[in-house]
Amino acid sequence: MSRLMITGFSGFVSSHFMEYLYQHHPDFEVYGVSLGTPVFDWCHYRDRMKVEFFEADLMDGDRLSSLFGEIRPDYVLHLAAFSSVAYSWQHPEKSFRNNCNIFLNLLNAARKTTPDCRILSVGSSEEYGAVPPGSLPIREDQPLRPVSPYAVARVAQEQLSKVYADAFGMQVIMTRSFNHIGPGQDSRFVVPSLLSRIIGIRKSGKPEGEIETGDLSVIRDFTDVRDVTDAYYRLLTGGTPGEVYNVCSGKGRKLSEIVDLIAEEVGVRVSTKTSPALIRPNENQEIVGSPEKIQKELGWQRKIPFNQTIKDMIKAMMSF
Amino acid sequence: MSRLMITGFSGFVSSHFMEYLYQHHPDFEVYGVSLGTPVFDWCHYRDRMKVEFFEADLMDGDRLSSLFGEIRPDYVLHLAAFSSVAYSWQHPEKSFRNNCNIFLNLLNAARKTTPDCRILSVGSSEEYGAVPPGSLPIREDQPLRPVSPYAVARVAQEQLSKVYADAFGMQVIMTRSFNHIGPGQDSRFVVPSLLSRIIGIRKSGKPEGEIETGDLSVIRDFTDVRDVTDAYYRLLTGGTPGEVYNVCSGKGRKLSEIVDLIAEEVGVRVSTKTSPALIRPNENQEIVGSPEKIQKELGWQRKIPFNQTIKDMIKAMMSF
Repeated sequence: MSRLMITGFSGFVSSHFMEYLYQHHPDFEVYGVSLGTPVFDWCHYRDRMKVEFFEADLMDGDRLSSLFGEIRPDYVLHLAAFSSVAYSWQHPEKSFRNNCNIFLNLLNAARKTTPDCRILSVGSSEEYGAVPPGSLPIREDQPLRPVSPYAVARVAQEQLSKVYADAFGMQVIMTRSFNHIGPGQDSRFVVPSLLSRIIGIRKSGKPEGEIETGDLSVIRDFTDVRDVTDAYYRLLTGGTPGEVYNVCSGKGRKLSEIVDLIAEEVGVRVSTKTSPALIRPNENQEIVGSPEKIQKELGWQRKIPFNQTIKDMIKAMMSF
Repeated sequence: MSRLMITGFSGFVSSHFMEYLYQHHPDFEVYGVSLGTPVFDWCHYRDRMKVEFFEADLMDGDRLSSLFGEIRPDYVLHLAAFSSVAYSWQHPEKSFRNNCNIFLNLLNAARKTTPDCRILSVGSSEEYGAVPPGSLPIREDQPLRPVSPYAVARVAQEQLSKVYADAFGMQVIMTRSFNHIGPGQDSRFVVPSLLSRIIGIRKSGKPEGEIETGDLSVIRDFTDVRDVTDAYYRLLTGGTPGEVYNVCSGKGRKLSEIVDLIAEEVGVRVSTKTSPALIRPNENQEIVGSPEKIQKELGWQRKIPFNQTIKDMIKAMMSF
C-alpha cells in the first residue's frame, strides 16, 4: 500500500484525481490536505479506498512538518495553489506566499521527515510568459520570461524543486501545466465562464443572446482534466526527478471557435461583444505546448476529444 | 533636493554609499531604513546632509507603506537582504522571505504611494548559478540556473522587478552584483575571513602560521565596495528601467593568490590546509563577469586597484 498526500485536496483537479485513483489504483491510501473542506464528496471513495482528510494552512511550516511526520507519505501530489493570474495582480504578496512560500515549506517538511518521497510540483505554462513568434509549440527548453506575479512565483517554485533535487537528491518532478478544463470547473476560468453564460441564454428560453468577453482571438492549448490526472499519475510514479514536463495537448484552439462550438451544442445563437475590462495586459496571442517529452518518456496520450469534454461540461452544468 | 530611501541602511554597502554621497552628492536627503541600528556612525554625516533613520521590519507591508507615504522618496536604494548563501541552506524559508518577499512588499508600497520613484534592486551573480565552461566572462544575456535557495530568491526578485517595470511602468533598475570587498566588511565573507586570520598570525608575534580554508583554487571577480557605490549611484540616477546590469570588475582572481598577496602585505608566511567543512556543494570553479554594459551605458569604470583595496582592509582591521 502506497501512502499519497494530496495538497489542495479540496479543489477541482484533486476531485478528478480521486476519481482516477478510485477507477484505476484504489490500492493507494490517500491523505488529503487543504485549507478548506473539499467541495466534492470525498467520503464516497471510502468504500474501496482508505481516504483521510486534514484541514491545514500550508503557510504554517510547523503544522506541515507534523503532518508529514504523521502521514509519512511515499508520494506527494502538490496541487495547492492560488492559481489565478488576475488575483496575483490584485494581491501580489498573498498570491506569491500561497504559491511559492507554501511550496518551500512543503519541501523542507518533506526533507526533514520523508526525504525519499516522490513529489509532483505542479507548475504552469504561465512560466513561459512572453513567447517569441516562431517558437511554437513551446518545448521545455524555452527560456522562461514570466510576465505576472503569479508566473514569477511558479518559476521560483520550479527552481526550488530543481535546487532540492540536485543538492539533496530529493525526488521532485515538475510540470508546466497548460489550460485544463472539465466538468465541475469554477466559472472564474474562461471556458466554464463562457459555458455558464451561454447556458444562461438557453435557460432564459430565448433562441439567441449576447455575451461580453475578453479577446476571443487568442489561441490556447486545452486538455481535459481527466487526461491531466492520468499525466500526473504517470509523472508522480514514473517521472525523472529534477526534470520538468509540459502537460498539454499540443493543439491550439481559438476562443471564438470554442464559443461557436458551445453555442451549437447548447442549441442557441450567440453574439459576442468585447469588453475592455476583460482584456488582460501583456497577453500572448497564441500559446501551444509540445507534449513530446511526456509522451516519449511516459507513454502518456490524451484520450478525450475536445468536443466530448465540452459535452460533458454542458451536461454537468445543465444538471444544476 | 532629492529624497533617497536606503533599505538595509545598517549594513556594509550602505555605510560606504553614505560616504560616497557625503563626498560627491551631499544635496541628497537620506532616509535610512533597517531592522537594526546602523553599526556605523551615521549621525556624523549630518553636518552637511539631511539624514534620518527609521527602524522597521520590511516583512511588515503596512509599516513599509506608511514609511513610503511619510518619506515619499524620489529614489530607493534597496540594499536590505539576507545575503549569505550558506544561511539560505540552513534557513531556506527565512532567507527566501527576507530577500524575495520583502522586495515584493517594497514594490507594492512604492506603487501605492510613489509610483514614479526610481528603485535600484540589488541582485547577485549567484543568480547565474551553474555556469557552463566557455561562457566567461558572464554577460547579462546568459541564462539563469540558480543552485541555492538564496539564488532562487534573487532571481524571483529580479523577475518581479521586470514584471512591475513592464506592467506598471515603474522605474526599477536591477543589478547582478559580483563579490565586493572593502574596509569594514564582516568576516563571514571570504576575503575578510582570510585577512582576519592572517592578521591574527601577525598579532601572535609568530613569523608564520597555518589557516584552514575552503577550496582556494576557485576564481572569483572582486570589486572594491567604493567602486560599487559609484556604480549604484550611476544606475540609480541614470540606468534604464527594466534593465539588468552586472556590477563586476571583469577580472578573475584565484583565492590562493589573494592569500599570498595578504601574507606579503601583512609580513608573515602562511600555509593553508583545506577543511572539508568549508567546501561548498555545487560550487562553480570560476566566476568572472563582463562589466561591458554598465561601462558603455553609464561610463562606469572601477578606479581602485585590488592591491589598494587589500591594503586599506588590512589598515582598517589592524586598527582594532
